[in-house]
Amino acid sequence: MTYAVDLNCDIGESFGAYNMGNDEAILDYVTSANIACGFHAGDPGTMRKTVELALEKNIGIGVHPGLQDLVGFGRREVAISPEEAYDLVVYQIGALSAFVKAEGGKLQHVKPHGALYNMAAKSASLSGAIAKAVYKVDSNLILFGLAGSELVKSGETIGLRTAHEVFADRTYQTDGTLTSRRKDNALITDEQQAINQVIRMVKENIVSTVQGTEIPIQAHTICIHGDGPKALDFAKSIPQALRDSGIEVKKIGDRFK
Amino acid sequence: MTYAVDLNCDIGESFGAYNMGNDEAILDYVTSANIACGFHAGDPGTMRKTVELALEKNIGIGVHPGLQDLVGFGRREVAISPEEAYDLVVYQIGALSAFVKAEGGKLQHVKPHGALYNMAAKSASLSGAIAKAVYKVDSNLILFGLAGSELVKSGETIGLRTAHEVFADRTYQTDGTLTSRRKDNALITDEQQAINQVIRMVKENIVSTVQGTEIPIQAHTICIHGDGPKALDFAKSIPQALRDSGIEVKKIGDRFK
Amino acid sequence: MTYAVDLNCDIGESFGAYNMGNDEAILDYVTSANIACGFHAGDPGTMRKTVELALEKNIGIGVHPGLQDLVGFGRREVAISPEEAYDLVVYQIGALSAFVKAEGGKLQHVKPHGALYNMAAKSASLSGAIAKAVYKVDSNLILFGLAGSELVKSGETIGLRTAHEVFADRTYQTDGTLTSRRKDNALITDEQQAINQVIRMVKENIVSTVQGTEIPIQAHTICIHGDGPKALDFAKSIPQALRDSGIEVKKIGDRFK
Amino acid sequence: MTYAVDLNCDIGESFGAYNMGNDEAILDYVTSANIACGFHAGDPGTMRKTVELALEKNIGIGVHPGLQDLVGFGRREVAISPEEAYDLVVYQIGALSAFVKAEGGKLQHVKPHGALYNMAAKSASLSGAIAKAVYKVDSNLILFGLAGSELVKSGETIGLRTAHEVFADRTYQTDGTLTSRRKDNALITDEQQAINQVIRMVKENIVSTVQGTEIPIQAHTICIHGDGPKALDFAKSIPQALRDSGIEVKKIGDRFK
Repeated sequence: MTYAVDLNCDIGESFGAYNMGNDEAILDYVTSANIACGFHAGDPGTMRKTVELALEKNIGIGVHPGLQDLVGFGRREVAISPEEAYDLVVYQIGALSAFVKAEGGKLQHVKPHGALYNMAAKSASLSGAIAKAVYKVDSNLILFGLAGSELVKSGETIGLRTAHEVFADRTYQTDGTLTSRRKDNALITDEQQAINQVIRMVKENIVSTVQGTEIPIQAHTICIHGDGPKALDFAKSIPQALRDSGIEVKKIGDRFK
Repeated sequence: MTYAVDLNCDIGESFGAYNMGNDEAILDYVTSANIACGFHAGDPGTMRKTVELALEKNIGIGVHPGLQDLVGFGRREVAISPEEAYDLVVYQIGALSAFVKAEGGKLQHVKPHGALYNMAAKSASLSGAIAKAVYKVDSNLILFGLAGSELVKSGETIGLRTAHEVFADRTYQTDGTLTSRRKDNALITDEQQAINQVIRMVKENIVSTVQGTEIPIQAHTICIHGDGPKALDFAKSIPQALRDSGIEVKKIGDRFK
Repeated sequence: MTYAVDLNCDIGESFGAYNMGNDEAILDYVTSANIACGFHAGDPGTMRKTVELALEKNIGIGVHPGLQDLVGFGRREVAISPEEAYDLVVYQIGALSAFVKAEGGKLQHVKPHGALYNMAAKSASLSGAIAKAVYKVDSNLILFGLAGSELVKSGETIGLRTAHEVFADRTYQTDGTLTSRRKDNALITDEQQAINQVIRMVKENIVSTVQGTEIPIQAHTICIHGDGPKALDFAKSIPQALRDSGIEVKKIGDRFK
Repeated sequence: MTYAVDLNCDIGESFGAYNMGNDEAILDYVTSANIACGFHAGDPGTMRKTVELALEKNIGIGVHPGLQDLVGFGRREVAISPEEAYDLVVYQIGALSAFVKAEGGKLQHVKPHGALYNMAAKSASLSGAIAKAVYKVDSNLILFGLAGSELVKSGETIGLRTAHEVFADRTYQTDGTLTSRRKDNALITDEQQAINQVIRMVKENIVSTVQGTEIPIQAHTICIHGDGPKALDFAKSIPQALRDSGIEVKKIGDRFK
């Protein structure tokens, strides 16, 4: 039995004169990257440079569509309609795909950002609209969503390949959702504990919850954070720890081949 | 000898709760349409509805990229670099193309908007960047530019098909440029005179200038304005007048077949 | 016993090349106006012209702060923090006050717009932040809010004068809230019924609810809509109907003198 | 004979999740600060925090209005009309003044940012509009502009107090303008040479030009850059060097008392 997992991170979040993240460094440790498209972060010039960088490093390129809320970095929920969700996802897939096409590359996946990701995880109507947007623009794209969420369900229903995403440094509830960041026990700060959690998710498809239960979970891709020096340290150690435990680290697009 | 010409107009310029133009009406009289992409006008929802409308009416669909200046409607020159021009054209082609692809359609052309169009007409470096953007994203797209301008020259140099655009209701200078709107004699207000000017441009490739000279001009596509009731009247009368004089009115993409 | 009421409407909602509303016409029938400040609608040039118009017509000038969501016209709820609400209200009061000061005028009131108004009506923390913003910038400003809502309560608590706002054309629930627009019976379409409702609210401080109960309500100012020809007709007839029933129509600032 | 000069720097240029500059550190070395107002940089929350910081450190607070070009950081010229310049300056003065007023402070000055500053330096019509905006909102505000430029001339003409601004690290042309950054000799990289230049400008009102001539110049305030570690080092050394040469360093508002 062989195991494999994808590691993804957000990149291309700079905007104009503003720098964010450490894209060059983090891309040495992940296999897929989600590129901001100018709504919650990113701008056309940043997108071009980020696509060039990702292609150079042979990373699976993903669209990272967000809410149109630059000052809030796409992290604040906005009461959009499913139709509006459809429209903004189509728009952002298109915008990024043109830069990828211009450089002779190919898009791999779509992962909604921040509040859009969270809203879609819980809402069948929003996630249905997002899945439809992805499918209608390019049915070969892989849809990333929180493992077990409405978003991956909607993707599967419409006929997309989906990637169930898990988090190394977040704790889980019995219903499969992440513990809210407002709770004290939301984060796993011990690196070994975080690594053990993802290894178990990948190999056994099980995660322990804060309630003490064990629940089934699929783990196709692991979310890696690139901002902050500690995040980068963790990003460095996780691929090695996965490989040491017999898990192959490869981009999701290769897995589906 | 047969003559043919394309008629193009700007559509999809509404934004959120703001309506602009009379898209449904004008599309009955043109063969190609330039759809705003959210930078100077338009928004994702408007783009989707506008693409659906244009496909329904079998209009040649064009990208209408503009400067990122919503409050100025893209009409104010911004001192962007050629690289920035490249990036914003790639971005906007992509955004619109996704809506077209989602509906099973195909893009026909790209026509820069407002100040970007005017700046590109005069600047070889800006127009070179724009032509490169179009070419790298999709070398089958037709580039629209002011007849004889740097923009069409750049398009031809890089290997794109180009459409020299003429104006029925504007007067020309001996150097082939349009008379500045700040001058009294910039506009042709007599409808018959305007029609005569375009017929001559299409059939004889000649236009009379305000200086009294006659200069050569190519006329592949005529710019039609859709805003204002008088504009709509003129839009109605011009296709018939052209046909009556033996000029076929058809979309530019069909002409190049 | 004398009765008096203020009539307010939203103006200054145009943006750049986009026109909205019929400001000149509606200002003949109201006593106070809420001017958009560039976040959900309006722009600096529009604000200047609108302030000039309101001063010319001797209308009570109000700040109309909204969420930073131009494409959604400030009508979509955004999950902002109380601190963010404070900041955006301070900012927008300042922006408008500078135009008023430049013309030698004086601000009268603040009325949050759209989703911000609705969110504040229900949330003590948001309305507390908004009331604090108004109070700290200018404690003489009058705070407009839905009659009986958290917003007017917060204003009263901090020491602001407040105006309880009522609606002629909306139905009420037993708890004093407006019937949701998603319900069939949300709107009063019969003009006489709408006029009777406001006259009773002003004179008797009572409104009938859709549940058939009668509840107490304060009615300092009536919201008048300016968009649409029918809205303008209603705007024309209501001041006369109020005066005919013995209610003085005057701006809220004069009432508090 | 006593000499005095003001030191000013730009602060409050962060935006949402994006940090820029090192405001706390630089404020220990300057006497006046120019706070971004949300058009080219800054946002309401950043403005509030920046105003609090500046008041705490007893810095002269200035409005730093810029062009509405966030992605270009207000550094790209936009062909705005004088009327548009008037409107955007009024708006931004108002927005910042509300935060200052809410904290019980007082505005000291206005210094246009980036491309607006450069355009105003050369254009009598733009600088006239800007001076009028400042004057009409608050005629006690001090207008900062490039020494000898159209902007300070316009301020003086309308009756504002003005501050002629000089640069320690930039070279001058015989006509009093700064050498374009595109030229090799635009910058003074030797710290001692930069210090000598400003001391001479303050004490003798003379500056040597790259053409070898000496020209008269007024030096009321020196522009200090806060970004970059080397900039901070220079910011630290300049006040001491000025004081050592007998020049008092104090905020411009105190000088005019």
